[in-house]
Amino acid sequence: MPPSKEISGRFFVRYRLTGDESEARAKAADLCLEQTVECPADILPKGFIPDEVVGRLESLQKSSAPGAPAYEALVSFLNDTTGGEITQLCNILYGNISLKKGFRLSRLEDGSGLWGRFKGPRFGCDGLRALLGQPHRPLLSTAVKPMGLSAVELAGLAGRFAAGGIDVIKDDHGLANQPFASFVERAERCAEAVRKAAAPAGRTILYAPNVTAPAAEVHERAHFAKQVGAGALLICPGLTGLDTMRALADDDSLALPILAHPAFLGSFVTSPGNGISHFALFGQLMRLAGADATIFPHFGGRFGFSLDECREVVDGCQDALGNLKSIFPTPGGGMSLRRLPELLAFYGNEVMFLVGADLVRNGPDIEKNCELFRELVERN
Amino acid sequence: MPPSKEISGRFFVRYRLTGDESEARAKAADLCLEQTVECPADILPKGFIPDEVVGRLESLQKSSAPGAPAYEALVSFLNDTTGGEITQLCNILYGNISLKKGFRLSRLEDGSGLWGRFKGPRFGCDGLRALLGQPHRPLLSTAVKPMGLSAVELAGLAGRFAAGGIDVIKDDHGLANQPFASFVERAERCAEAVRKAAAPAGRTILYAPNVTAPAAEVHERAHFAKQVGAGALLICPGLTGLDTMRALADDDSLALPILAHPAFLGSFVTSPGNGISHFALFGQLMRLAGADATIFPHFGGRFGFSLDECREVVDGCQDALGNLKSIFPTPGGGMSLRRLPELLAFYGNEVMFLVGADLVRNGPDIEKNCELFRELVERN
Repeated sequence: MPPSKEISGRFFVRYRLTGDESEARAKAADLCLEQTVECPADILPKGFIPDEVVGRLESLQKSSAPGAPAYEALVSFLNDTTGGEITQLCNILYGNISLKKGFRLSRLEDGSGLWGRFKGPRFGCDGLRALLGQPHRPLLSTAVKPMGLSAVELAGLAGRFAAGGIDVIKDDHGLANQPFASFVERAERCAEAVRKAAAPAGRTILYAPNVTAPAAEVHERAHFAKQVGAGALLICPGLTGLDTMRALADDDSLALPILAHPAFLGSFVTSPGNGISHFALFGQLMRLAGADATIFPHFGGRFGFSLDECREVVDGCQDALGNLKSIFPTPGGGMSLRRLPELLAFYGNEVMFLVGADLVRNGPDIEKNCELFRELVERN
Repeated sequence: MPPSKEISGRFFVRYRLTGDESEARAKAADLCLEQTVECPADILPKGFIPDEVVGRLESLQKSSAPGAPAYEALVSFLNDTTGGEITQLCNILYGNISLKKGFRLSRLEDGSGLWGRFKGPRFGCDGLRALLGQPHRPLLSTAVKPMGLSAVELAGLAGRFAAGGIDVIKDDHGLANQPFASFVERAERCAEAVRKAAAPAGRTILYAPNVTAPAAEVHERAHFAKQVGAGALLICPGLTGLDTMRALADDDSLALPILAHPAFLGSFVTSPGNGISHFALFGQLMRLAGADATIFPHFGGRFGFSLDECREVVDGCQDALGNLKSIFPTPGGGMSLRRLPELLAFYGNEVMFLVGADLVRNGPDIEKNCELFRELVERN
């Protein structure tokens, strides 16, 4: 536990503050104190703390976005206030002000060396493409479910998806360590089923078990998964904390691609004037914390994201953020095969599609449904 | 990693669903699938899965609460769907539906043995009172801050608070492992300062360093803190994940009281029709995950909780939940000494008050300010 190394410079964050100019200015001043020293300015000793540690309002501009009147504030913070830790970075970004109304974190901007302190995605788009031997087309993914099936039944499904040529086959994120399909048996059987089914065609297919688990077991499950041949990992950072995902991504003895699932994170985005933008949460923060693919619900499925919000996620996956690799937006949440032309038009090639139930629903021959999925994407 | 033991029975959860009766009924049906099997009902195999694993709507009643029309749904889930893990319990409670609008988790109800699977608070109100030798009056707490002071300066403050007789002296939750006051030096110096200052009066005073940290370091910091004499721990479960707090609370080799801080959790409560109620989030879930005290912003300070919302937190700390101990609501967030009569009237004795900046601001003699805090509470 050595003290963290100094990280010179400041990092910049954009917030949307609801209100007219004087309200927005008051909110900005409040934010600069609340996110750092958490006390009124008049009790601070002069010098370093008010001059450097307190957040600094760099600019304030009227927002042109539709909705309630709002201002865009660019705020800078001293890199050292984060101690180089994602937990404390998130606290500076949105810790206390999460409890107030009318503050929305829009995006991480220039990081003068702070973003470079995080390794971010180990694979990113290029690395995952190289691993799968798929340099161009959108990647295909699906989920084994539902909860309640036995490990043997889930493995049967995984094998059929693999025989059908799906690139990444993940656990449903509700599969944990339930008595009806324990983690150990499920990971072992699914990994084996995928390996056997992929072998005849010489394909690389990754099985990603869900390692969302009690704090002390995440790494144990991940290492067990690797040992039995899983090629990737699924985790819900909203349930485990973002840094738990970061630690998996940074673990050189694992070195597996990470898929991030958005469970339990929706409240950050559902209230437009509050919370964190889709861009920053599902794009930038997931990437900073090591995800190689970020799952989110596409417009028009079972969930309510708009097309603009989906576009934000894509941009957050790909727009420059230090030197961090870009990652795969992974739209899912009730996607059907018949929507693929529309999805392809919207996302282009730099995407991993997640189609779940429709690969079972589209007809009794699951393998054929998977092949159709693949054909629809390759035809593009 | 053995499979989880079976936990027979079901647990019951109350949700508020926005809409008229038919909308609420549709939302309830959606919730029962989305929180468990995550797929349409028509592709489920007959038997155990639709009969037991899928959530079950037990009752639906029109809500009498003010605001948009809504219904109160009582839903039950199979205990085994959680695998006995807090991560997966939170996923069942509010994982995917966090991404939809108009679903609010109101409260955990009867748990038929599930709540009993969690040890919950090690101390609770009675245990913390016994530790401090304060059987009746409200407890007093404060925070050492601001971020940017050196460990020596922070320890100076901690010592003065202890000399003034504050029961629990916590780190500000933004103190992590920054270069200007590393965790090791701060914990060591503050614990020592508190011990020395408490000794003459023979008082028990607890110093609670902030152990919110990267996943692999939380336990290391907590054990170091104990070793140097810290008497309690502060953690932000919104940043680390709830189970990380649970693991600290359950660690018999630590056996320290835990204070939970709400940083990064506000988005769950700021949008009335969405998210999680104050009762369930800051009361029940914190308690289930092992907090002995739950910090939240009292009405009329720097934050926006209403009196009703503060009352909800109190009730969530104290209302029956399995056999879990009741815990201390810990209102703070800009509380001043002059508000104590009002706070005492609202909270009664079963509370820990958190007064921060006002103990510095109320006059140059910090020790005297602390004594005034104590007198105002003891006079009650």
